[in-house]
Amino acid sequence: MIAVGDSYEKEIVVTDQMVRLFAEATGDKNPLHLDDAVAAKTKFGRRLVHGMLLAGLISKIFGMDWPGPGTIYISQSIQFLKPAFVGDPMILRLSVKEMPTPKRAVILTECYNKDNELLATGEGAVSLPREL
Amino acid sequence: MIAVGDSYEKEIVVTDQMVRLFAEATGDKNPLHLDDAVAAKTKFGRRLVHGMLLAGLISKIFGMDWPGPGTIYISQSIQFLKPAFVGDPMILRLSVKEMPTPKRAVILTECYNKDNELLATGEGAVSLPREL
Repeated sequence: MIAVGDSYEKEIVVTDQMVRLFAEATGDKNPLHLDDAVAAKTKFGRRLVHGMLLAGLISKIFGMDWPGPGTIYISQSIQFLKPAFVGDPMILRLSVKEMPTPKRAVILTECYNKDNELLATGEGAVSLPREL
Repeated sequence: MIAVGDSYEKEIVVTDQMVRLFAEATGDKNPLHLDDAVAAKTKFGRRLVHGMLLAGLISKIFGMDWPGPGTIYISQSIQFLKPAFVGDPMILRLSVKEMPTPKRAVILTECYNKDNELLATGEGAVSLPREL
């Protein structure tokens, strides 16, 4: 089981394909995410990952990897601090901040780029899976 | 432009296809979302929409519909209160709660089922698009 201070880290690259699938799933086809030429003309200069796709990747870790199957999602917050670019390597760092009860964890959820700049931060609350 | 008290409502059905695209985009292939037989054996009885797909649909509205293009996402919180089922009609209700500055809005984001039960609630903060 997990305890306060435990952490989980995963390097990810959000690919063009992931962004296009997310755009189809949600209908969010803003060209800033999908069109290189449009993105190049903005202050960002390059295509951005949908912020909520980062949240979806955090959610995937909770449900499938850490704590893993049986985890129930209670809540999530996310602040978008800096742009996350399509194709750039990023690090998701999750760490257990509090356990209000033995079955419930509040997990700090951070996304960094390779320069160790914090791109997004927030907290997830989960109900932990039953021990096997 | 939008003002405190303004609201936006949209009926949505999260389809099987949307859930499968979201699962591919994020890697979250929990059978509770994808496999009828597995879901039938759980306390939910039916397949659940990924919670973060609901957040993605809210994000889509902000970026494309209301306030629309040029909106910059600052943050979002979401609490998952009751299960959202694949294929069921739902209502997304967004309403402007505060405007800390004329360019920034805090928007209450709620998702209801057809029985008017609140399935998910939270708040999004956005920077508003420049007036045309």
